[in-house]
Amino acid sequence: MSQGQISPSFYQPTAQELSQVRDMLISFPQRTPYPWLSQLLGHVLGEGGGKMLRPTLSLLIGKCLGYRAHLHVPMAVAVELLHTATLVHDDAVDDSPLRRGKATLNVLWDRTTSVLVGDYLFSLAAELAANTGNMEVIKLFAATLMNVCNGELQEKSFSHRIDVTREQYFSCIDLKTASLFSAATEAAALLSQAPAGSVQAMKNYGHHLGMAFQVVDDILDFVGEEREMGKPVGSDLLQGTLTLPALLLVERCPGGGPVAALFQGQDAEANLEKAIALIRDSSIIEECYAVAQGFQAQACQSLQVLADSPFRQALLDMADYSVQRQR
Amino acid sequence: MSQGQISPSFYQPTAQELSQVRDMLISFPQRTPYPWLSQLLGHVLGEGGGKMLRPTLSLLIGKCLGYRAHLHVPMAVAVELLHTATLVHDDAVDDSPLRRGKATLNVLWDRTTSVLVGDYLFSLAAELAANTGNMEVIKLFAATLMNVCNGELQEKSFSHRIDVTREQYFSCIDLKTASLFSAATEAAALLSQAPAGSVQAMKNYGHHLGMAFQVVDDILDFVGEEREMGKPVGSDLLQGTLTLPALLLVERCPGGGPVAALFQGQDAEANLEKAIALIRDSSIIEECYAVAQGFQAQACQSLQVLADSPFRQALLDMADYSVQRQR
Repeated sequence: MSQGQISPSFYQPTAQELSQVRDMLISFPQRTPYPWLSQLLGHVLGEGGGKMLRPTLSLLIGKCLGYRAHLHVPMAVAVELLHTATLVHDDAVDDSPLRRGKATLNVLWDRTTSVLVGDYLFSLAAELAANTGNMEVIKLFAATLMNVCNGELQEKSFSHRIDVTREQYFSCIDLKTASLFSAATEAAALLSQAPAGSVQAMKNYGHHLGMAFQVVDDILDFVGEEREMGKPVGSDLLQGTLTLPALLLVERCPGGGPVAALFQGQDAEANLEKAIALIRDSSIIEECYAVAQGFQAQACQSLQVLADSPFRQALLDMADYSVQRQR
Repeated sequence: MSQGQISPSFYQPTAQELSQVRDMLISFPQRTPYPWLSQLLGHVLGEGGGKMLRPTLSLLIGKCLGYRAHLHVPMAVAVELLHTATLVHDDAVDDSPLRRGKATLNVLWDRTTSVLVGDYLFSLAAELAANTGNMEVIKLFAATLMNVCNGELQEKSFSHRIDVTREQYFSCIDLKTASLFSAATEAAALLSQAPAGSVQAMKNYGHHLGMAFQVVDDILDFVGEEREMGKPVGSDLLQGTLTLPALLLVERCPGGGPVAALFQGQDAEANLEKAIALIRDSSIIEECYAVAQGFQAQACQSLQVLADSPFRQALLDMADYSVQRQR
């Protein structure tokens, strides 16, 4: 988290466990015998990860359903590693200069290094998942990586197309984003040896939370401050990705309006500005927030199987945060 | 294999099992519900893999130590998938136009697609490894990916350096190449529930075979025909990688001779030609073959724990092939 940002309340109940997760993440660079790899891992994991939402989810659910530190901590680390690996590969292929406010491996070294470090992080995550000794968790990890790749490939296959349906959009964000959230929550419930109903409820919670989170991400791409978001407004659209706000705009404009023009390569700057203005000045953002709130509500409903506790409250707070956050 | 090439004898004893492996590889594109992913996988796996050396190793060792088709076939597929994934990522970062005589994903689509398809293949391999239900095999897969990444990063860290030692070179090729061969052989022995001594012997066999294989690969980069190899002579050196033949040349030239000049960016073409000529006209190639033969001999020695059979003979033939091959 950046300086000056107030730490959301949901971090508090598992603050101690979260610092164990951070310590483990920070320990990897020191544990490799190869100095350069150590330096690379230090750069990516040095400060112990980003927002740490996914590991926090795992820890909170572990606390709700039966906490086993020797399983939940490494699993939370594995979830964060898998997430970080996908970010490193995203940066590698996008040639992104910045991530989490720091120069990417691409900039400091090169694309080859980024791809290899991403691969290495996958293998570290796989090793930690294997170390849980829980076959369901191991299979879940493999399936999750498969889902994330599928989601990103699907998104790519929709690139610069204005005929993407809401169903296709939801399927995409389910695969590329929500699948990792639900893996974090489902795996935690499995490691607690929770009954099947609770495992399913936690999986549902993670799924809906992830959906809300991504819809809001896509909203913030249009209404966020460039300074806060660390990327220009409308960057998804500029890259040819039709997220929910743009999709709703296309639905309202016969022929696709400025989005269609932009995707056809006509006067990018003017059409992007026009699209952003139309989205901001309409009820589209409100409508998108209503969609996110729908997912949030379903996430909260899934938590009804849990007894009341500060951990359950933190999970509710997290669902709230997924919609309220400004970055 | 290219048309007209005679199939080496070691494929015969497990020809039927190998065709099951090929069928399974070919089935993946058909089993995905996403048409584009199906097309991408079809391109990479369509003809059922390349030389299939690593799956053949797994099958032969399974046959020697106790064959369990439902475990050895998927594991052989997983080994080939892991290998293919690393090739796809190599091509992604090298922007290679050709692989196995076909245009790469990079050329037909783009780098993003290559990275994502590589990641997807990793996850498929991880899923198949998980499906064996054998925790040692699962951990071996994760560790192998880690080793391959380490090896490639190490090789990269030595780029354009003439002070690489033989030990560093051997450590590099062990990690990036031999580790996958030894994973293929060790995993097969583990799935046969072979005694620890046999598992270790099969691991050693795979390791030494892989070392011989890579040393010969590095020799062929200097003495092979461009047409046969599918890449220009001396391409490793041109890319700044000091393999064994070049390393021996540097040892003989005070100051590093043409290799040092090449790595310093001086008249690349002339210095590359000079280095190739010096390597070809000296005893260096002979010396490198002696090193490869040393590894081959150690590989064969490891097979003494196995009873005589056509499968064991094929493993001996494979060790022979690893040194004799012309491409």
